[in-house]
Amino acid sequence: MGSVIADQSMSLDGYCTAVGARGATSLGAWGERLLHAWMFRDDATGRNAAVRDELFATAGAAIMGRRMFDVGVEPWGEEPPFHMPVFVITHHAREPLARRGGTTYHFVTGGIDDVLARARAVAGDRDVVILGGADTIRQFLVGGLLDELRIHLVPVVLGGGTRLFDRTGPEPIDLLPTRVVGAPGATHLTFRVLANH
Amino acid sequence: MGSVIADQSMSLDGYCTAVGARGATSLGAWGERLLHAWMFRDDATGRNAAVRDELFATAGAAIMGRRMFDVGVEPWGEEPPFHMPVFVITHHAREPLARRGGTTYHFVTGGIDDVLARARAVAGDRDVVILGGADTIRQFLVGGLLDELRIHLVPVVLGGGTRLFDRTGPEPIDLLPTRVVGAPGATHLTFRVLANH
Repeated sequence: MGSVIADQSMSLDGYCTAVGARGATSLGAWGERLLHAWMFRDDATGRNAAVRDELFATAGAAIMGRRMFDVGVEPWGEEPPFHMPVFVITHHAREPLARRGGTTYHFVTGGIDDVLARARAVAGDRDVVILGGADTIRQFLVGGLLDELRIHLVPVVLGGGTRLFDRTGPEPIDLLPTRVVGAPGATHLTFRVLANH
Repeated sequence: MGSVIADQSMSLDGYCTAVGARGATSLGAWGERLLHAWMFRDDATGRNAAVRDELFATAGAAIMGRRMFDVGVEPWGEEPPFHMPVFVITHHAREPLARRGGTTYHFVTGGIDDVLARARAVAGDRDVVILGGADTIRQFLVGGLLDELRIHLVPVVLGGGTRLFDRTGPEPIDLLPTRVVGAPGATHLTFRVLANH
């Protein structure tokens, strides 16, 4: 069985989206671009590209929350960048939505345990990646379902937005740093999730 | 003239103290110890010790807020670990307090510009280090007075406490990562502070 990995870009002050999940303000849209700019940034070291590519190289299925899906489905377009089944956590059942290049969006109403079981069944020995948003990652983290956290720490103090880590308490959760990769526009941090205290 | 450097330990979820600045609960006291444990952790690489020592090797004066002083003055004891003049930002003037080993606490009532001028006058070509707490670092950061941020990122999701970065908005502040040092118990991140947007 593969690992369950949450993967998220985050500003140094802890935001994974800028000023509201909908990017309603210009700072919102600007901040969104800034947090993900490292993915599209050519750099002499090739480190950003390597980090970006390895996730999808080992993953067999992805999970995301419905708000992330709502915001992303249009920009991701006819051939989304996932190239694997994507399970969307929602309250409203609907038919799967097939796109080109191997991405099919499946809508799962049974909560995180159900969605994880379905994603694992598809992924087999490959990893399952939790793509966000913050509340979805929080549920997996607090529920003890995450094996690994990959944080792409973006060197900016954003000053507003949605915090990646919020209402995770009351029990602290220990992590073990397993890798650090410095690159232009992001410091890529990998942590193994240890037991809650 | 030396640099103005803020130096702070921070959990992955952005807390620099655990559950209230006074460490009133057991989690508070436990969390405090956890955030600073890297400083006292022997590791085969020697990286924690190197990071801990270099700050005080280049600094000629330190600055802290009054609450940090109030909490720390007793545990720091008769020979505090600073070995340099420490300027405490306060509303209440009082006489300097001399300790052994080169630490004298000076109490400054004129705000951050005044305290920085006094610290710089003492530090000369050496650095001035802002030791905290969060609100003091925020004032220097937002005021455009910081040259460098040193964050010791501790691999734990703490779930509560005082956030290092809060109310810094509305203008995002760009940083440039200049160094990453992975070590047991902390990932040591150094950023140059660039202009506000």
